[in-house]
Amino acid sequence: MTEASELRGVYAAVLTPFTAALEPNLGAFVAHCRWLLAHGCDGLAPLGTTGEANSLSVAQRLALVEAAAAAGLPMGRFIFGAGSCALADAVAVTKAVVAAGSGGALLLPPFYYKNPTEDGLFAFFSEVVQRVGDRRLRLYLYHFPQLSTVPITPALVARLKRQYGDTIAGLKDSSGDWQTTATFLKEFPGFGVFSGSEQFLLPNLRAGGVGCISASTNVTAPLARPVYAAWQSDAADALQEGLTAVRLVFQSYPLQAALKEIVAVITGDPSWRVLLPPNHPLAPAERAALAARLRDLPQMQPVFRLAA
Amino acid sequence: MTEASELRGVYAAVLTPFTAALEPNLGAFVAHCRWLLAHGCDGLAPLGTTGEANSLSVAQRLALVEAAAAAGLPMGRFIFGAGSCALADAVAVTKAVVAAGSGGALLLPPFYYKNPTEDGLFAFFSEVVQRVGDRRLRLYLYHFPQLSTVPITPALVARLKRQYGDTIAGLKDSSGDWQTTATFLKEFPGFGVFSGSEQFLLPNLRAGGVGCISASTNVTAPLARPVYAAWQSDAADALQEGLTAVRLVFQSYPLQAALKEIVAVITGDPSWRVLLPPNHPLAPAERAALAARLRDLPQMQPVFRLAA
Repeated sequence: MTEASELRGVYAAVLTPFTAALEPNLGAFVAHCRWLLAHGCDGLAPLGTTGEANSLSVAQRLALVEAAAAAGLPMGRFIFGAGSCALADAVAVTKAVVAAGSGGALLLPPFYYKNPTEDGLFAFFSEVVQRVGDRRLRLYLYHFPQLSTVPITPALVARLKRQYGDTIAGLKDSSGDWQTTATFLKEFPGFGVFSGSEQFLLPNLRAGGVGCISASTNVTAPLARPVYAAWQSDAADALQEGLTAVRLVFQSYPLQAALKEIVAVITGDPSWRVLLPPNHPLAPAERAALAARLRDLPQMQPVFRLAA
Repeated sequence: MTEASELRGVYAAVLTPFTAALEPNLGAFVAHCRWLLAHGCDGLAPLGTTGEANSLSVAQRLALVEAAAAAGLPMGRFIFGAGSCALADAVAVTKAVVAAGSGGALLLPPFYYKNPTEDGLFAFFSEVVQRVGDRRLRLYLYHFPQLSTVPITPALVARLKRQYGDTIAGLKDSSGDWQTTATFLKEFPGFGVFSGSEQFLLPNLRAGGVGCISASTNVTAPLARPVYAAWQSDAADALQEGLTAVRLVFQSYPLQAALKEIVAVITGDPSWRVLLPPNHPLAPAERAALAARLRDLPQMQPVFRLAA
């Protein structure tokens, strides 16, 4: 097995819990990471869109990385988000993540300026790789044009891989467009392509991808696990169907708020409902409706029973 | 004259010069600020889109604020950009800017998450105002939907002004849409509305606005000055026409790169051509074409003659 394919399976884009003062709650974060690893996740991807990383200062991000490492969590199975519009910040977070022993770093393109050229994006990622200057770096490119507004194109991937080889380890495709994922898989055999939603877990594995890094696996990890375990068997399709049904419920709400709501319900800790502005918790009526819709799904029963 | 209208006139959204190592060149920055104040600017607005602020770490931004203050530049006539997707960063930069005696802070909405609610945006700006907790704060809201993707709506302005009064001092409208500016001016008499381009300097002043904060005034300040000086006379229209013609040339190129190119020509300092990725300098052929087009405009002759 090549190094590039070592990170695979069900990943959660880990939510970040906050204190009332809007600081990361490090203890609750570590506890949630442990819960996810114990209930179906092969690895974890904190500090992404779901983790509200772009709403956090670099110091706040580094505190979460250090808390995970200090708690003895298996850093080699972590892919920390490290992106920023600011080159110096992307370099600082990526360096810290590599130093902590993280299996990978997930990098957004710089997302403030619109329609950057391919040369400009190549220069940004090149500067990060060169300034980090560490052979252990495994970079996962983060394709999420709906939020970043800046797509990662196959041409850019090809150019980066040509220059930096195995350092360019993979990609998270959060476009929600299966055709885009299929293109990356076809053009770059052996590339570590994660789908950005567990809805595409099975199709992605069957087409040569390595798994999913998903927001909703913060809750659905126990349901995604059997899909991954069975992906080479006929039983997988029915399991995927049940998993997708849950994802689609979450997707019909603001995703971070909906997931934090259900983690608050499962853990019994209402502080999980805190989000950093501009995101905010679900309104009370939405909370009740979401929980009711999920409780109606038979596959969600065992997940709710995991509550303390 | 109320405090809110004290900041007015021709402002440049100051370019940030960089060293070859991609660090802010503090000496060249201060020298450029002095040049602008000596050649037509009433005030300066560093650390905006033109200043590549979102490509800079907080530490790099604060170094520029401190350099300006330490050089004895007239802080009361500065409006520093202080926006960030991250609440903690926006608070840190705004605090530093107020402590340095800056006349105002220009704040982008958080721009990573798309379609934030008005409640979410209100919460973000509220947290900044409350955490800064300084009566000297004069906040200018930064409306630039083409880059931020998140508009500042009249409803949001009304709500913020209701809650925070004169602290919400004004707005920079970089939408390029005159109708939007006209709406802000009509709905909020006395609000400090700057147009984001000197193309609208005269219409904005005539409709009750306070001036412009523009990228291209890094070069055209000497031409914008007479428009502002004459705005109540009939002579202003012809001057505005000449000013607009120069702006439109710049606007047909990547703006930051084109402006840095011409500042490099005027100062004779080629290091002005450095931009942070994903932005990058003009290609050699573009450089020559831009300079030639500007040299063809009679109103640009005195500006080129300002070169050492």
